[in-house]
Amino acid sequence: MALSLSRGVFRTDTPVKIESFASVAGAKEGEGPLGEYFDEIIEDSHFGQPTWEKAESRFQLEAVSLAVRKAGLVKEDIDVICSGDLIDQCIGSTYGLKELSIPYLGLYGACSTMAEGMLTATLIIASGAAERTAAVTSSHFSTAERQFRFPLSYGGQRTPTSQWTCTASGAVILSGRGELAVAGGCIGKITDMGISDINNMGSAMAPAAAETISRYLTATGTFPEDYDYIITGDLGTTGSVLLNEIMQRQGTDISRQHRDCGAMIFDSEAQGTGCGGSGCGCSASVLCGYFLPELIKKKGQILFAATGALMSPLSLQQGGNVPSISHLVHIRSC
Amino acid sequence: MALSLSRGVFRTDTPVKIESFASVAGAKEGEGPLGEYFDEIIEDSHFGQPTWEKAESRFQLEAVSLAVRKAGLVKEDIDVICSGDLIDQCIGSTYGLKELSIPYLGLYGACSTMAEGMLTATLIIASGAAERTAAVTSSHFSTAERQFRFPLSYGGQRTPTSQWTCTASGAVILSGRGELAVAGGCIGKITDMGISDINNMGSAMAPAAAETISRYLTATGTFPEDYDYIITGDLGTTGSVLLNEIMQRQGTDISRQHRDCGAMIFDSEAQGTGCGGSGCGCSASVLCGYFLPELIKKKGQILFAATGALMSPLSLQQGGNVPSISHLVHIRSC
Repeated sequence: MALSLSRGVFRTDTPVKIESFASVAGAKEGEGPLGEYFDEIIEDSHFGQPTWEKAESRFQLEAVSLAVRKAGLVKEDIDVICSGDLIDQCIGSTYGLKELSIPYLGLYGACSTMAEGMLTATLIIASGAAERTAAVTSSHFSTAERQFRFPLSYGGQRTPTSQWTCTASGAVILSGRGELAVAGGCIGKITDMGISDINNMGSAMAPAAAETISRYLTATGTFPEDYDYIITGDLGTTGSVLLNEIMQRQGTDISRQHRDCGAMIFDSEAQGTGCGGSGCGCSASVLCGYFLPELIKKKGQILFAATGALMSPLSLQQGGNVPSISHLVHIRSC
Repeated sequence: MALSLSRGVFRTDTPVKIESFASVAGAKEGEGPLGEYFDEIIEDSHFGQPTWEKAESRFQLEAVSLAVRKAGLVKEDIDVICSGDLIDQCIGSTYGLKELSIPYLGLYGACSTMAEGMLTATLIIASGAAERTAAVTSSHFSTAERQFRFPLSYGGQRTPTSQWTCTASGAVILSGRGELAVAGGCIGKITDMGISDINNMGSAMAPAAAETISRYLTATGTFPEDYDYIITGDLGTTGSVLLNEIMQRQGTDISRQHRDCGAMIFDSEAQGTGCGGSGCGCSASVLCGYFLPELIKKKGQILFAATGALMSPLSLQQGGNVPSISHLVHIRSC
């Protein structure tokens, strides 16, 4: 069972545990500062497939399959899988996972999908409707680039605030057993602060992260010091500075606990990745590759607040801003 | 609480009730056989907006707002809203609902979204994480046509098996009170039977509906005769015939209980709508406009199995089939 603390915020009364997790990353991510932490590095950006979209599907299938194997399970042991990605109509997920034949809930939370999936998968177990669920998501530099920005062969210049979509996937399996537990969560609200620059996603998403983190701290009566890390998804360096500023103005200093997966995954200067990594697979792979193993070793608790920008190229062409969202998962060692 | 009956199938032990619902439909839907049942008919397909996408957002906002008003609530009473639509990156939902500032879970289930949203919204209440949730979805003929098929001004001919995307929206509010209850549900599996004709969605989706309905009947030990209606989303006339054939071959005759929202919403011959209506808003508006009021009057129970095709124009161009899914909600009068 879960207990509602305030609108969209809950505590998990009977803890839902993280039984297994896995991360798969591309070559560039493998060369970055976190390269050694990922379970698998796939050197071929096509992953043996004829198109990038099919490659992304394969990344997602690989991450789930690996998480299943690591737990000594088979795919039939998973009751429900929650997934989504950035490609139009979420084909990275649907074509990637169809062969698993696991009851499937498709999500769209842009780069917040890993947290949204974990929240949904947690609440399904908490309701009693399933015993074991999974959450997975992915992104691919080349599928995102041609869909959201320009064809790769156009060779467009990148602005200083732009980020680099990660080629990566992360998967988590939830059940009644494991060394880590989901202690609670916060479902994000759509936040629109008027940013309309598609090359400055971090700034668009920072207010959403601030709203979600603040709401969770307030509802639970906890403070940044209570957590080892407060992790955001892919604000990058610009968005991270902004998040810390917004929180400071509200009287909450999270600067010592804050880490951003996007800012961590690349060595921006050496790798030419602008403000950092982005994409659903960024926070998913860094959570599953780096933070969850770290939390098992060190014991403690973290807040994982993945962040997503909910616009489309069409909505921007029609004069829309970049509405954003951040979903938060509170994870602690058992 | 809910009780797991088999993978993806659950019974709602403490019933989650339908407190309110609303439907909003476009002019053509208003002229169809169900015109008198919708709460509102919007004659202007632009709904006062400069673009069709913004019009679709307005349809969705209107349906939620109306469901909230009909229950004597305010938007702050809704703890979580589950929504999605067919437009790339689900901008119909995100731009439509952002002003409500309700904790938001974005879904992508194509035309199965209404059932997926109701299942998710039900399980969140069953978990104890929220007291009152909402599910909403929409579709718009002109946004879908230019995204999935051809620009409207191209004037392309329609094939006999093609369907007409409905301009409509439906919203449901779930809580502990109401005259109808969600008695259980079935989370669909992605089904791919090799159909690759984008103009024959009904045939692609029929096997998914059959799999979901069969799985629910088996897990609950119930029979078609136990239900007043077994409703599919938008199989249209071709897909409906196929569904009945598949079920017959499995030894289950649902022909007396089966109704299809897509086959009901238009007078195909008079309105030139091919095999019937389609789109997320088709099943959502017919459920909320016709079936739920009917169920309150007549008492009884229904199975609502919305159906979705999970492909994209790009996945078809890359040689993919049309993978489909069907989620089922079991609704009964209290």
